[in-house]
Amino acid sequence: MITDADQTDAELLDPSTERGARAVLSHLVEAGDHTLSALLEADPAPEVLARVLSDSSPEFGAARLRAARVDTRASAAYAIRQGISVLVPGDAQWPEGLTDVAEAPICLWVDGPLELSRLRWSGVSIVGSRAATAYGRDIAAGLAAGLSERGYAVVSGAAFGIDAAAHRGALVAGRGGTVAVLAGGVDRPYPSAHGPLLAELRERGAVLSESPPGWAPQRHRFLLRNRIIAAMTAGTVVVEAGLRSGSLNTARHAATIGRPVGVVPGPVTSMLSAGCHQAVRDGVAMLVTDVAEVLDLVGRMGQDAAARPSAPAAPQDLLSAADQVVWAALPIRAATSVDALVFATGVAPGALMAALTRLELAGLAARVGADWRRRVP
Amino acid sequence: MITDADQTDAELLDPSTERGARAVLSHLVEAGDHTLSALLEADPAPEVLARVLSDSSPEFGAARLRAARVDTRASAAYAIRQGISVLVPGDAQWPEGLTDVAEAPICLWVDGPLELSRLRWSGVSIVGSRAATAYGRDIAAGLAAGLSERGYAVVSGAAFGIDAAAHRGALVAGRGGTVAVLAGGVDRPYPSAHGPLLAELRERGAVLSESPPGWAPQRHRFLLRNRIIAAMTAGTVVVEAGLRSGSLNTARHAATIGRPVGVVPGPVTSMLSAGCHQAVRDGVAMLVTDVAEVLDLVGRMGQDAAARPSAPAAPQDLLSAADQVVWAALPIRAATSVDALVFATGVAPGALMAALTRLELAGLAARVGADWRRRVP
Repeated sequence: MITDADQTDAELLDPSTERGARAVLSHLVEAGDHTLSALLEADPAPEVLARVLSDSSPEFGAARLRAARVDTRASAAYAIRQGISVLVPGDAQWPEGLTDVAEAPICLWVDGPLELSRLRWSGVSIVGSRAATAYGRDIAAGLAAGLSERGYAVVSGAAFGIDAAAHRGALVAGRGGTVAVLAGGVDRPYPSAHGPLLAELRERGAVLSESPPGWAPQRHRFLLRNRIIAAMTAGTVVVEAGLRSGSLNTARHAATIGRPVGVVPGPVTSMLSAGCHQAVRDGVAMLVTDVAEVLDLVGRMGQDAAARPSAPAAPQDLLSAADQVVWAALPIRAATSVDALVFATGVAPGALMAALTRLELAGLAARVGADWRRRVP
Repeated sequence: MITDADQTDAELLDPSTERGARAVLSHLVEAGDHTLSALLEADPAPEVLARVLSDSSPEFGAARLRAARVDTRASAAYAIRQGISVLVPGDAQWPEGLTDVAEAPICLWVDGPLELSRLRWSGVSIVGSRAATAYGRDIAAGLAAGLSERGYAVVSGAAFGIDAAAHRGALVAGRGGTVAVLAGGVDRPYPSAHGPLLAELRERGAVLSESPPGWAPQRHRFLLRNRIIAAMTAGTVVVEAGLRSGSLNTARHAATIGRPVGVVPGPVTSMLSAGCHQAVRDGVAMLVTDVAEVLDLVGRMGQDAAARPSAPAAPQDLLSAADQVVWAALPIRAATSVDALVFATGVAPGALMAALTRLELAGLAARVGADWRRRVP
């Protein structure tokens, strides 16, 4: 019996199929190529591939050079061995939101179980500065945990600072999942210090890229990667951004295709909030200060209509961002150990015990012997 | 020889004059009284006073009770001894901006040398929470110093926290001066710990109130006082405000009469910035982060136009900076004399006449006999 996975693997190895041809093309032409996008819009990928490889297309000279040097069949076989799949437009899993991207991706190389197609409606992108402050990281983790708790997936770029805090906050809460969009190959952790984080995302969420496995995260690919982050989700939130931050580039992509953009304010003395403040002044972004306001921004109409901050929706919304992370990490049924919570949240044992005590007093956490679980009010 | 001061003192002691009658009325009726404002709009104050004191006006029963108990003549004599003067509408010193207040002040009790009439164009109100953080106080003092440095007077309420920081910042810079609007009598320092600060304001700026000397700063007078702070200046900036802060009341007054409102953002973890953030989200206030952005918000057109022009298309925007100053100084309704314009703008008579002629040609100014008023295109 041939399973679906067997079939897509077979397609991937066969350049006469849409999937196989697009996989080959993604080795030959850089993402964001306008000419190739137009060709793929008009004709099946195998035909476009043939045209690119033929002598009669001078604009693809570089692609033919690459074709002579890259063993695209070996690359596809390697992806199959690694469990990396290739999505193409028309797949049930293809992210709906990417239809709004100006230069549509040729294909996506994906590793991880998270269902991508619905992120346009149930995903939020959280991005920000690599050189984030503790304030910014706390807020990013708290927002991500709150969104994940409510079933939203958190999409980001796996960079240091805000991106990593957002992924971790979502992992701690666990429900909505989290997705990293990389500028290089999905098997090539970048930054390398985030190897363990990306391994967890491959296991429990998804890691994806327009670049084939093994490819380096070159500078221009980061900017192109940003348009994918912006387009995949219902909206984008920038937590900390200097005036020239790349995350503002992601925000501009989102605004350009009509997706709502939120920014988190901060002290005016922090240059890392200056880009956020400027975006509000320029009218391209809405100021957001908590999960309810993010949901108001990106939420499906009516469904997540936000309460004003004078009347918070749930007791946990009154918690500090740090306590929200701990609260989100508490299991609802079986209790868990303090050690496991320290590991999951990255909060130091003393601070964690203090947070648990506050949560207990607020009626939001319960002791079970030496372990802890969430208490639903 | 009788000096101006002698003459206004004589008027103050004489209830058959506008000044004297209004001074008496301010003892009898609380500020913000709609009925009294309407009467004073229609008739001279001595007539209104007579009507209030007569048996035929049942709505002023409380006023007659007070009239029987308060020695208003002794109060006026005390004010004169203390160097406190009384301003009434029509005085050259009367703050221009107060003409936009819904319930016009009966009179203002003033102590201090600062020229009040031009604050509508060269004053900024800075208000905020009493329970301010060090962050908020630093920002308030910095904005006030920067504005004062550029010749703007800073108006506030002399409360703890943001208000005091704003007054002190302006005093340090020294150029523009600073004005406190009190809820009780100008001779009655409130809070009492601010006695030395208010003494300095009386010496170098001004302290004013709608309430006669000696009167207590009762709760409702704070709210009424806020409308004076909002109306006197070109715009209001809120530095820190909780969701129920009284400074948001000042901001609402300013917005209601069409004055621009700026708010300074802060950490979303600080409840003292929550009111500021909400005001931005509600669209009633502009986010401002530094002196240049405050000037952009309140500045005389052209003169203080900030680095990033928002490019509105109004005809006056095409004027030179100097002509815009003259245009901004032209009254919309009653025409004013060239001398008064020279005084108001600081532009020399010859240059002023040339500017007026250009404005006339551009359809932006009109002659009324020897006087001039603005012409709305």
